[in-house]
Amino acid sequence: MNHYSTLYKQELLENVIPFWMKHSKDEEHGGFYTCLDQFGKVFDTDKFIWLQGRETWMFSMLYDKVAPKQEWLDMAVHGADFLKKHGRDAEGNFYFSLTKQGQPLVQPYNIFSDCFAAMGFGALYKVKPEDEYADIARKTFQNILNRRENPKGKYSKAYPGTRNLRNFSLPMILSNLSLEMEHLLDKSLVDSLMQEIIHEVMEVFYHEESGLILENVYEDGSFADCFEGRLLNPGHIIEAMWFIMDLAVRLKDQALINRTVEIALRTLESGWDNEFGGILYFQDIKGHPVQQLEWDQKLWWVHVEALVCMAKAYAVTGDERCQRWFEKLHDYTWNHFRDDQYSEWFGYLNRRGEVLLPLKGGKWKGCFHVPRALYQVYSTLENCKMEVAQAEKLGAR
Amino acid sequence: MNHYSTLYKQELLENVIPFWMKHSKDEEHGGFYTCLDQFGKVFDTDKFIWLQGRETWMFSMLYDKVAPKQEWLDMAVHGADFLKKHGRDAEGNFYFSLTKQGQPLVQPYNIFSDCFAAMGFGALYKVKPEDEYADIARKTFQNILNRRENPKGKYSKAYPGTRNLRNFSLPMILSNLSLEMEHLLDKSLVDSLMQEIIHEVMEVFYHEESGLILENVYEDGSFADCFEGRLLNPGHIIEAMWFIMDLAVRLKDQALINRTVEIALRTLESGWDNEFGGILYFQDIKGHPVQQLEWDQKLWWVHVEALVCMAKAYAVTGDERCQRWFEKLHDYTWNHFRDDQYSEWFGYLNRRGEVLLPLKGGKWKGCFHVPRALYQVYSTLENCKMEVAQAEKLGAR
Repeated sequence: MNHYSTLYKQELLENVIPFWMKHSKDEEHGGFYTCLDQFGKVFDTDKFIWLQGRETWMFSMLYDKVAPKQEWLDMAVHGADFLKKHGRDAEGNFYFSLTKQGQPLVQPYNIFSDCFAAMGFGALYKVKPEDEYADIARKTFQNILNRRENPKGKYSKAYPGTRNLRNFSLPMILSNLSLEMEHLLDKSLVDSLMQEIIHEVMEVFYHEESGLILENVYEDGSFADCFEGRLLNPGHIIEAMWFIMDLAVRLKDQALINRTVEIALRTLESGWDNEFGGILYFQDIKGHPVQQLEWDQKLWWVHVEALVCMAKAYAVTGDERCQRWFEKLHDYTWNHFRDDQYSEWFGYLNRRGEVLLPLKGGKWKGCFHVPRALYQVYSTLENCKMEVAQAEKLGAR
Repeated sequence: MNHYSTLYKQELLENVIPFWMKHSKDEEHGGFYTCLDQFGKVFDTDKFIWLQGRETWMFSMLYDKVAPKQEWLDMAVHGADFLKKHGRDAEGNFYFSLTKQGQPLVQPYNIFSDCFAAMGFGALYKVKPEDEYADIARKTFQNILNRRENPKGKYSKAYPGTRNLRNFSLPMILSNLSLEMEHLLDKSLVDSLMQEIIHEVMEVFYHEESGLILENVYEDGSFADCFEGRLLNPGHIIEAMWFIMDLAVRLKDQALINRTVEIALRTLESGWDNEFGGILYFQDIKGHPVQQLEWDQKLWWVHVEALVCMAKAYAVTGDERCQRWFEKLHDYTWNHFRDDQYSEWFGYLNRRGEVLLPLKGGKWKGCFHVPRALYQVYSTLENCKMEVAQAEKLGAR
């Protein structure tokens, strides 16, 4: 699979990163524009905290892991400065969105703003160890843990007590974030968090009968037969499986590695659209109509995270099913999401794989999934021999 | 257009209403199931207040306007009983949804629950004049007016002051609701409300440059160049135009009638999908990508409300453009939304007009738009000669 490694690295460094370098930096007000059309032109100037944090993380990570290029560090600092100055309310919660000048537009109802801000400041601290970055990252992370049981807080519309559901997104993000923040946290906190999160993802949200992972369950982990309870989000499951796989590799837990691979493969089998190709966005576990009208669309993040998952799964197990899925996903993804006309990739395709929104960035798509996946795939496959050898030592095959 | 009248009446009475009579009544817990699959089977038991209120309204209206059938009155009372018993919180706000037993699931964050509950109780009072129904309808309507400036209340996520936008939905609903509630309200209140609402819809939300109506504007009615501000919802505009047309007919305001017709025709021209037919769900007035991933889908309510609008427009103006649009919409709607296999109509089609969700009712689709539109079209065209004559008196043609 070595030619893939070269291809993904080249796509990252020559196509995708230059797009964001060129088009997203707001030199006048700070921070990043992310609503960029096919050719990188800004079509909306609002600034979404998720995406500010994610782009800050991305450039810090590139500087740390790929090459110490000054322009990348400058981008990261540029994002962090804007977040530091405008991102938080008086209690240190990150707003959801701001105007281009940094005035708050949407309240901190969404804890993922905090997650990606923490991730950005944490990564930047690694490459530019200023106390302030570490401090913001740590405080924000603590704030996330404090809000963990009720992440939407006063913005929750659920009537308490009737049907208390837990949502999969936060444990899923924390499985990645706790590793990303490790250098800033007490070892004992990280260790206990890891165990808790692995339990949540792999036991509480795991649905025995189907072998898949549910988006929402009752507080005791049991199945809720309602729209939210029946919901499957194949992209979430697959992305979470590579997060947990990373933890499992670190914990040298081969049984856990194998479980993540099996769940990911099962999700791909059941989430794949046999008629038009690609992975469906949402499914109902009982086959009923879902609430989400966009259920049959093909989203960039779902596909690129699946590529990462299969590259990693192949690297740690050498399982040929993973290689076959990687190649199938590669063909679909590069043929449908990649834009032959201009740099970066499309984000939203209809069921048939035709472009639904001709944007390269928007309210939810920024400088994150595509470049992170390109990096993860190339670095995984570059190190593949080494990792396969390691897996053999663990008795994987 | 007389054959249409017969066809729409027959479809209402022999196809659509029997579906809801047969499948939606919950004999055990009261109220209505609305999540019904293609063949009427209940696939989810949650009860959405919007749809409980709307079905109560529908059967009351049929009893009042079509025929005093006891079974219709029983259905209306059945819905009202459930709403009365379980629908409201301590302050009299209607919840968004309940379990099948009537326990609250989702808080009263959505003022449209109150709108349709008021509409249901108001209509039922007409045909079964019990003080309690009038009382609930009046109090709920007053509550809506009190909440009017801040309908989402504490559930609003907007940061106050940065970009205060007004949304079109509430004035639009009120333009219909104030006529529906007229028999319960002081004449002076109705008269002043009508003037206010006509001003809001036709001036504040009206966008001079395009001749269309925006979904969200600044508080002074000016254009906001952001996702919300650029949003067009052709279905909303067209439905609102027949609401205002009804007011205008009543006020004998020919200039206003003509304006509603011109705006509706312009919206149809700009919202029609020239590639695959049908009316698009959302558009961006500047042609930028919208936030709504479902923007290119074809929704039942958009199309049936457009039929009502063109039938009424034709009836009051005799304008041939309205007849041509009515026929074009009729062909698309009956060929794509109507189910040849089983009763009631599909709700959600993809851009190509293929069924996207094979449900007849769900969280948002209930016993409302299809039967109301069938009733409105048949009764409008039945009375067409009379109304055309009336319009002639007003000097319309």
